[in-house]
Order: sequence, then structure tokens, then C-alpha cells
Amino acid sequence: MPGLPKQKVTIIGSGNWGSSIARVCAQNTIRHPELFEREVRMWVFEEQIDGKNLTDIINEKHENVKYLPGINLGENVVAVPDVQEAAKGANVLVFVLPHQFVYKVCESLRGVTDKDCRAISLIKGLDYKNNNLLIFSEEIEKILGIHCAALSGANIASEVAEEQFGETTIACRDPKDGEIFYRLFHTDYFDVNVIGDWRGLQVCGALKNVVALGAGICDGLHYGNNTKSAVIRRGLLEMRKFGKTFFGGVHTETYFESCGVADLITTCAGGRNRKVAAAFIKSGKSIEEIEKEMLNGQKLQGTTTSQEVYHFLSARNMTQEFPLMTAIYRVIYEHAPPESIALDLRTRNVKVDME
Amino acid sequence: MPGLPKQKVTIIGSGNWGSSIARVCAQNTIRHPELFEREVRMWVFEEQIDGKNLTDIINEKHENVKYLPGINLGENVVAVPDVQEAAKGANVLVFVLPHQFVYKVCESLRGVTDKDCRAISLIKGLDYKNNNLLIFSEEIEKILGIHCAALSGANIASEVAEEQFGETTIACRDPKDGEIFYRLFHTDYFDVNVIGDWRGLQVCGALKNVVALGAGICDGLHYGNNTKSAVIRRGLLEMRKFGKTFFGGVHTETYFESCGVADLITTCAGGRNRKVAAAFIKSGKSIEEIEKEMLNGQKLQGTTTSQEVYHFLSARNMTQEFPLMTAIYRVIYEHAPPESIALDLRTRNVKVDME
Repeated sequence: MPGLPKQKVTIIGSGNWGSSIARVCAQNTIRHPELFEREVRMWVFEEQIDGKNLTDIINEKHENVKYLPGINLGENVVAVPDVQEAAKGANVLVFVLPHQFVYKVCESLRGVTDKDCRAISLIKGLDYKNNNLLIFSEEIEKILGIHCAALSGANIASEVAEEQFGETTIACRDPKDGEIFYRLFHTDYFDVNVIGDWRGLQVCGALKNVVALGAGICDGLHYGNNTKSAVIRRGLLEMRKFGKTFFGGVHTETYFESCGVADLITTCAGGRNRKVAAAFIKSGKSIEEIEKEMLNGQKLQGTTTSQEVYHFLSARNMTQEFPLMTAIYRVIYEHAPPESIALDLRTRNVKVDME
Repeated sequence: MPGLPKQKVTIIGSGNWGSSIARVCAQNTIRHPELFEREVRMWVFEEQIDGKNLTDIINEKHENVKYLPGINLGENVVAVPDVQEAAKGANVLVFVLPHQFVYKVCESLRGVTDKDCRAISLIKGLDYKNNNLLIFSEEIEKILGIHCAALSGANIASEVAEEQFGETTIACRDPKDGEIFYRLFHTDYFDVNVIGDWRGLQVCGALKNVVALGAGICDGLHYGNNTKSAVIRRGLLEMRKFGKTFFGGVHTETYFESCGVADLITTCAGGRNRKVAAAFIKSGKSIEEIEKEMLNGQKLQGTTTSQEVYHFLSARNMTQEFPLMTAIYRVIYEHAPPESIALDLRTRNVKVDME
């Protein structure tokens, strides 16, 4: 990239996924010294582990002992406890933190980031505000006044950290940004494809968690493969329809990417949304109780998104057009019979679609 | 359907899937007496069970004790040991038999079927002849001189027989045929969608078995979810590219149908192609040995299709354009390292596809 200054990379976030992705970036800043500064800064929310600062442990052992134990992040990952200090002078900001912290952290970076800085969001979910669903990369753009791309794919963090082969999708407006992000994230084991549809990518990342609840409900009912794959397929169709109906230029091709069908398959096969929904059906307990038991009090992404999607559709009188999303919400929050997850998908009239 | 004579339905085949689908048809001929004759004839290759004819057992007990034990087919399913007698006077022929018997059976029906008879093929796979891949519904059309539709979907036969909810796809040229087939196959638990792309549907039905071998190789190597879903996604892309490159008018939408992504998910989750491929990797034995051990000597569909696809691509110098299909063939038949299943998918250059 002639004319481009050496890019300084900062990771905003240091959980399981943040640490895995910091490791990928740190390998690539070494691999492409013409493009990147070697050092990758990582903002770490400071906490004490056995009386020591987590940042100090990371900087000594090159390991995030709390969120990604047993994995060497690379000596060029530098943990920084102050988010402004971490972001100062950065040319690339990688946002990878729970969605409830996005606004606060972004606000604290207002005025700190350079104007020619570029960002990429690895945040899952959509933001629900004033009965609207907002795309996080666009929210970051608004707050910081910089371009923000997005990355999403069938990426279980621990598998990426173990260098098991996988794929991901990056979406951005500007092909030049796409090339920089490709070089920052692509490795032999982490295969990157760059597309233009940042909205479709983020719609997929949010709604697949709702579909995974549906897959979990099927498992809880001991339904077979035919039913479960019907639910997953209808989920894919509703994800696409949702994107096209409410987010304009969303492309069908996006749903063939890793962020689309592949992430959906992975999330519906494993994933905690599926597991909690299955336990919800089998146990008769509330989602909150099961979250406490299975997730150590953490909240599921899919249930929140399910509620938001339902309220969003209700406000537009469109629940009937998304029967699976609606059935999932009603099973979980309105005591609808769990069997409705499949029964509500039944068509009643001849539908001959000869294209 | 005004003006249409009452349709007489004959099932050609009586294995596990043939018996399940005969049961579905028999329910619908009762449900739609204005459109169908009540009786559904089923051609059964005669064999002896404890000294009795299988056809006699089916006609007395209304159960195919050999291929679908424990399931009542309906008293209006009538087993007929002679294929010509079974097909005589039929308005609808449902072909559901192993692909190696198709030509012989069709030849024996030449001249027996009425000209206004319509057929539907539930045969999986493509026919490999003179280094070409042929579509079975089109082969049936050629031999019998009648229209032939096709049905394929995420349909494990035993689950359909147990009336677990599932979906399927029917593809045909003529919307009127589509309406008749919809009424013959659609039930509350077996949801039918009718499309026009019979070639795409049958390409999916054949190639998903090859992709399932890839998923099985991943399992045999204890690969994680990221890798497996990458293989399945690349498989879906190659299935689509194969259809579009070699079978002309194939539609992207077909891959969103039950015959596409849903059947692929089901086949890669369970399915004997996946299981045998996993055992092949783990055991070091040949595919033939494992077929003997696990399938009682029956042959896998996926391995045959894999060979055929590979030879078809080789003859056209196009193996490089289908890296997953090629890697699967080479792992199974040419002792290529099994890891190539993932490694051969890696891209080497920035690919920015802004659409």
C-alpha cells in the first residue's frame, strides 16, 4: 500500500474472542512489517488475579490467563489498562467487546482517535433503541466520525486460538480498507473473504443466535433431523427476509458467506444459545434460572435479540411474516407450546414457485 | 382440477423411502378423493419372508415388515409384484428405487404407461454415462416419453414415516403438474414447496452426499466446528457452481430450498456417508472394507458420486475450480493426506468482493 503510514493496531477488548483475534493480528503485524507496526496494543479492563494486575500478567506471560488460558498471544501483544492510552495514535481499531459496553467505550474515545483511523467491529448483535434496530459498525462510525468495517463468521474463539482451520467474512464500504483488514486478519488457518455488505453481515451475526434457540427447542423436544434442518433453513430464509426488508441493500450472496450459512450451522450445532434453549424445554425452568445455572449469571445474546426482534416486528404489525422468529419468542417468553416451533411453519395452500 | 380424470397413483419401489412415501401418498389420496383414486399401488420386488411373499404380508398387515417395520402404511396401499401390472393405467408414477435399477425398470415400462401419465423421480444421484452426468428425471422422460418431475429434501425416511415435521422440495416444468404433486405429497407434517428448477434440485441431491464425506473426514480428524462448517459451506458453493457451470439454468434460490441447504445440513449431521468417511479416516481401512462392516455390503452413494464427479471434472480440466470435491476424491481414492480437506480450501491472495 504505497503512501500509507505504518499502521498501528489496537484491539478494544480482551475477552475470549478479543484475545484470540489479538493473537491473529499480532502474527500478521509481524508477517507484514511493510504495512503494520509490530506492536499490537490490547485494551484490557483491569482486574486482579491472585493479587496481580491482569495487564501485568499478560505482558509478562503473553497469556490472558483469565479468558484464554494456555494460549501464547505473542510477545508483541501489549495489554494496556487505559482505553484512551490504548487507542491513542492507532490507525486501526478492532472493537471486540460485549455489546452493552460499546457506547460507553466509544464515547470515551471521542476526540482521541485520528480522523484517518479506521475501525472494524467484531461485536455480535444489533442495538435496540427507540424501537429501532441499529447496526453497531454504523453506530461506531457516527460516534467517532471514522469508517467502520465489520467481521463475522463461523469462528469459535478457542478453535481460532488453536489454529484450527476456519473462515471468516469481513464487510466494508471501501475496497482499500478491505485490503488492509485482509492482511491484518488472514492467515493460513483463518481464511478471510471481503465483501461489501456490512449490514447483511451484521444482521446474520445477530439473528443466527435467535435461530439457534429454535434449534435448541427442537433438541429439547427430541425432534429429529428433518425438523431441525427445516427450522434452520426457515431461520436462514427469515434472516435474509429481515435483512432485505429492514436494511435495504442486503445481498443474497452474503448468506452464502461464512458470516451467513456457516456461522448459522456452527451456532445451531454447538453454541450456548442452543444448549440453554434445550435445557429450558427439558427442565421447565425459566431462561433466567438456566442462565444462572449454566452461564454463571451471564446473559444469552439470542434471548435478548429474540425479544428485540419480536418487539420490532410487533410495532410494524409484521410478526406473521416471520413465523419462526415469532414462534421462538412466544415459546420462550409467552408460554406458547414448544411444538409451535415446527407447527407454525406449516404452509396451508399450494405454493408453486416456478421462478 | 376440473376436467382431470381421477388420478391413479403407483409407487415404483418399496424400500425404506418408497414405503414411507407410499404412506404419505395413501393419506392424500383419501384426503383428496375428488382428485385421486383411493388405492395406491406399490410395486414390490418380490421376496420371501419366513416362507411368505412380501407382497402378501404387506397386503394383509399393511406393513412393510422388511423395510419399514412397525409402521402402518394404510389399507389403501396395495403391493403388486409385477411392475407392468402395477403401472398399468396409472396417471402418476412415483419412482423411488436405487439408481442402478432405474433403466431396467423404465425399459420394462416402455409402452405400458399412458401418454398423459406424469412421473416424479425420488431417485438420488446422477447417472454417469460416456463421461457425462445425466439427470434421472430427464432420463425417465426420454425412455417413457412423459413429463417427469423430481422430489428431494431433508427427508430421513423413518422420520417421515413417524410423522415428524419436515419439508421437501418438488421441481417440475409444468405448474399444473406441480399442483397435482403438491396435493399428492403435502401433509401437515410433510411440508412441500414446488419450484421450477428440476436440474438444480437433482444436482443438490447427488452432490450433498460428496460434501457429507468431507464432513465425515473432518469428524475422523477430530476437527472442530469452524473447520466442519467451512467444509460444508464450501461444499454448498461448489454444489451451486457445479450446477450453474454444467447444468445451465440452475437457480441460486434452489440452494435455499429443503433440497439444498437443509438436506445438506441433515446429511452432514447424520447420514451414512458422513459416518463411513469418519470411520475410514480413523481406521485406516479401505472404503470397501468399511462398507462391508457398517453397511452390510451395501454401497455408499457419496463415494460413487465422488468418483464420477472427479472423472467428469478431470476430463474437462476443471478439478482446480472445485477444490473441495477434488480433495475429497483424492483423500478417499488416492491416499492424499486427509488434512488436505481443509488445507486445499485456503485462499492465497486478497479476495475483495464488494459485489
